[in-house]
Amino acid sequence: MLDHILRTLIGSPMPTHQMGEERLSKVRALAALSPDALSSIAYANQEIFLGLVVAGAAGLAFAWPIALAIVALLAIVALSYTQIIRAYPTGGGAYTVARENLGTIPGLVAAAALFINYLLAVAVSLTAGVAALASAFPVLWPHRTAVSLLLLAVITVVNLRGVREAGLVIAVPVYLFLGSFLAMLAIGLARALLEGPGDPAAVAPAPLQSVTLMLVLHTFASGCTALTGIEAISNGVQIFKPPETRHANQTMLAMTILMAVLFLGSTGLTQYLGVVSGPEETILSALARRVLGTNVLYFAVQLALLGVLIVGANTSYVGFPRLASLLARDGYVPRQLSLLGDRLVFSNGILVLAGLAGVLIVLFEGDSHALVPLFAVGAFLAFALSQAGMVSYWLRGRQPGWLIKAVLNSLGTLVTGVALAVMMITKFADGAWIVIVLIPLLVVVFRRIQEHYIAISAQLTLRGLPPSLLPLPEPRIVLPVSGVHRGVIEALRYAGSLSRHVTAVYVEIEPGAGERVRRQWTEWGLDSFARLEIVPSPYRSVIGPLLDYLDRQDHEVNDGQLASVLLPEFVTAHWWEAFLHNQTAWLIKLALLYRRRSLGKTRGIIDYPQHLRR
Amino acid sequence: MLDHILRTLIGSPMPTHQMGEERLSKVRALAALSPDALSSIAYANQEIFLGLVVAGAAGLAFAWPIALAIVALLAIVALSYTQIIRAYPTGGGAYTVARENLGTIPGLVAAAALFINYLLAVAVSLTAGVAALASAFPVLWPHRTAVSLLLLAVITVVNLRGVREAGLVIAVPVYLFLGSFLAMLAIGLARALLEGPGDPAAVAPAPLQSVTLMLVLHTFASGCTALTGIEAISNGVQIFKPPETRHANQTMLAMTILMAVLFLGSTGLTQYLGVVSGPEETILSALARRVLGTNVLYFAVQLALLGVLIVGANTSYVGFPRLASLLARDGYVPRQLSLLGDRLVFSNGILVLAGLAGVLIVLFEGDSHALVPLFAVGAFLAFALSQAGMVSYWLRGRQPGWLIKAVLNSLGTLVTGVALAVMMITKFADGAWIVIVLIPLLVVVFRRIQEHYIAISAQLTLRGLPPSLLPLPEPRIVLPVSGVHRGVIEALRYAGSLSRHVTAVYVEIEPGAGERVRRQWTEWGLDSFARLEIVPSPYRSVIGPLLDYLDRQDHEVNDGQLASVLLPEFVTAHWWEAFLHNQTAWLIKLALLYRRRSLGKTRGIIDYPQHLRR
Repeated sequence: MLDHILRTLIGSPMPTHQMGEERLSKVRALAALSPDALSSIAYANQEIFLGLVVAGAAGLAFAWPIALAIVALLAIVALSYTQIIRAYPTGGGAYTVARENLGTIPGLVAAAALFINYLLAVAVSLTAGVAALASAFPVLWPHRTAVSLLLLAVITVVNLRGVREAGLVIAVPVYLFLGSFLAMLAIGLARALLEGPGDPAAVAPAPLQSVTLMLVLHTFASGCTALTGIEAISNGVQIFKPPETRHANQTMLAMTILMAVLFLGSTGLTQYLGVVSGPEETILSALARRVLGTNVLYFAVQLALLGVLIVGANTSYVGFPRLASLLARDGYVPRQLSLLGDRLVFSNGILVLAGLAGVLIVLFEGDSHALVPLFAVGAFLAFALSQAGMVSYWLRGRQPGWLIKAVLNSLGTLVTGVALAVMMITKFADGAWIVIVLIPLLVVVFRRIQEHYIAISAQLTLRGLPPSLLPLPEPRIVLPVSGVHRGVIEALRYAGSLSRHVTAVYVEIEPGAGERVRRQWTEWGLDSFARLEIVPSPYRSVIGPLLDYLDRQDHEVNDGQLASVLLPEFVTAHWWEAFLHNQTAWLIKLALLYRRRSLGKTRGIIDYPQHLRR
Repeated sequence: MLDHILRTLIGSPMPTHQMGEERLSKVRALAALSPDALSSIAYANQEIFLGLVVAGAAGLAFAWPIALAIVALLAIVALSYTQIIRAYPTGGGAYTVARENLGTIPGLVAAAALFINYLLAVAVSLTAGVAALASAFPVLWPHRTAVSLLLLAVITVVNLRGVREAGLVIAVPVYLFLGSFLAMLAIGLARALLEGPGDPAAVAPAPLQSVTLMLVLHTFASGCTALTGIEAISNGVQIFKPPETRHANQTMLAMTILMAVLFLGSTGLTQYLGVVSGPEETILSALARRVLGTNVLYFAVQLALLGVLIVGANTSYVGFPRLASLLARDGYVPRQLSLLGDRLVFSNGILVLAGLAGVLIVLFEGDSHALVPLFAVGAFLAFALSQAGMVSYWLRGRQPGWLIKAVLNSLGTLVTGVALAVMMITKFADGAWIVIVLIPLLVVVFRRIQEHYIAISAQLTLRGLPPSLLPLPEPRIVLPVSGVHRGVIEALRYAGSLSRHVTAVYVEIEPGAGERVRRQWTEWGLDSFARLEIVPSPYRSVIGPLLDYLDRQDHEVNDGQLASVLLPEFVTAHWWEAFLHNQTAWLIKLALLYRRRSLGKTRGIIDYPQHLRR
């Protein structure tokens, strides 16, 4: 039944040969690769507002200069990325660029930063989307965590089915968002020209503190989240129609301009019109309400924002499993993450991402503002490492025009590095420390995992000492029995077909019970199958005396191998009935595999399952 | 390491022959068997106060009449129990008495009622004890749940070590409690005579409702918890020194008088002195404070109360596992509950009791008042069923004096039955419904479990059709391989020692990989060990194609048995490393045991564990 539900949700398995790549036009590629970047304005605007409003109207006056600084940063980063597009036409993620140009450790640092960043992108996008929704429908405000988790579940199921990145399901929300937001900005501009500036002093809450350098830097650091997602086009160059590089760069330009227009437009209008929002509304919602009024247009804008944020979260569902499978192939994370699932998606990676994002949403109570301090650090660390990697790339390669290119990427490294430093300092106590602790920890884990895989393959390799190819001698088989019944007789018949050296062992817990079993054994003529040994157990444990017996027998017989253990096991007709049995077979197996005295000993464990009919 | 911690907490195993019974004098037996009954005054007093205080001073005036009614009930129930002591000198619990005299279903109803009652006795006693403690140390009041759970853990560990019921650790708190409480009542009496009555109207909160019949009955029902635990002596007749019956009856009389004195004394003094308590104090604490002042004597009384409540909770740790083992022997609950643990205690029963009581404490937020409505129903149902069983016993046996005895037990049945009805009606919505739903549910579960065991033993019996005693033919062995490495070669050598019919199967997920494996197979000369079959898997699953292959082979060869599967399995050096492997062997085993297509098929599953060194 579980299987049936899963099939209905996820869909039927798809054969491997259906895998293929579809090339996209610039318009479809923009929709596929930009939602994460474009939707960033939702939380960036919110962070700038929340950062400044504590200083009242005087603080809010800094929104425009901060936005201009961020857009300057955006331009430099975008320009640097066009160079990565040219150098890595097959797609150069931060992990690849840093590893190839800076070495393994910087590569792993970039990978760790990206891991955390993908996770946070999902959590922040969804919670910001739900905040937009709950601004329009205040009844949802107290239930933001639950709504976010619901959306997370939906996106996860959709991704387990497998969505084409290029599908209409992605393109429609992106262009709806662009259309409605640009329209809103145009109407806002008209209103601003007609009505003149608003007075924030009239509506802003009383300042709780004065404007300090720290406050401005703190707000700038939070606003830098506007840049997250900008790397997507450089990672996905190969999905463009040829000539890929030119098309990708043109799309990069278009996306950067759109990001700048949306961000400057919304921040500027908010400040010019003197818009302020209450505690249960986002600033973008307040702006839309001010420009459009609370009518159907307003609701359309909020839903479009929710839509693009969901699609933005979805890009992590492509990026994270892809990165994980790359790392898994290099042996840095569990190998299962490199397996394609039933539906040609990396199901394990998707499930890990969804599980961890769900934990984040619950821990941070569905509040994107609380998540943001963790968010930008990972993103900017990956930016800075890619840019630094590119500097090294140009310096080593010395292709035509390498100097100007190296200078440009150096500038990128510098500004993203400075922004990163500002973030780490101003946001440290707000949560950035978590990321600063986690990244080196993840790098250590990556390396420990790789060491494990290397150690294993050294133990399994056939190079060096060639293995013996002689068959082993006929094994002794020890059969623990709980009495004389049909199950034991079936197991004895099977044991007899495997070896001529079979011993049955009865662990006697109740004094005297052994004699009864021996009498029955003889009555049924089982001595011809196997000798019965009675092992007393004064402490009423089955496992200990059985292991002792095995050690004793191995020592006495000394035929160069350990006895195999045959366990007659009942399989109950319903899973819950398993609780009604002692599960001794299972406990014996665990002891044989994991007890200290068993470690390193290769001893065959033979299950002989007997299915109970009811 | 885990093993070491457990050993330190629980102690070393004890051999079976150390089991024995110690006979007790009346003084020690009173301490062993009465703490549950004596400590009941803690919650009974509290319930009467909370029940009446909502009607203000007018309500509180009913405390004394209600207490008198409860003591009358106590006398009748105690008298009825002396007859059970005479009829069942080996100990007659409600389960035994009801089953032998009324039939299986009433017996199981009594068992279900007792199960629930033992659980609640632990939860109510501990939370009432912690309420007494937190009344003295108000800083603990908000942390009552945590403190209760801590005490629960301590009692559980002590019981897993095994406590002699007769130990000093039990006797000391009981007599300390009796001494300090009787002294407090004497001082209170002196104070009452010297100072005259207090005026409750001056201190009682304003009435929230008027005194109604429902209110009085409701309070009476809650106060009946004073009787819980009274059955303990009749269950434990065999621990007295001979003549057991006479000693037990004398102790029963002493306990009943003590219960009546403590209960009437505390209720009477509370009312006469006009004592009222606030929301963060128990009424007994308020009484002790009023009589003794807030000094060292007051703290001693509170700690003595905590002590006797803990010891009272402890009696369930003896009764519950004993009842569970009785039921397990009759096949009504999982058999594991009848196993004596390392320390000669029924460890499984103790753990089940502690786990469920912990859940109750958490669910009811450590508040004994919230638990009480569930508590008394189970106790009184068990009372009524024992008494009814005794009526039937006398009517059938017609021993000398049977008529008067039958009349007395009929009176007991009637009054406990009426009290039970009052409880079920007045407390239904407060939580009694949970018990009313649970008891029949438990009875159904008991019977389903017994049916399962009966069905199993019918399948295993050697009576009827005698089993074939011929050995099976040499089995075919199928060995799934993931490539050619040292682990596979070791597994092949083992397979060769078990049978001459070995096939290796490679499930090909990546097209073309099979050919590579076949080349290596031939290179290493493994064809002499086993034929290699390549099974393509277009949907990238290992399990499905392997099961298909097995079915096909079984069908083609058709040698009257199914092929055995040999699984080379890696055991990693550290448990966490298991996550780094696909666990394919484990998944194959699960599929062979539990997939629908495998059900009912007896197919040997051979594990060949290979321990990795790091």
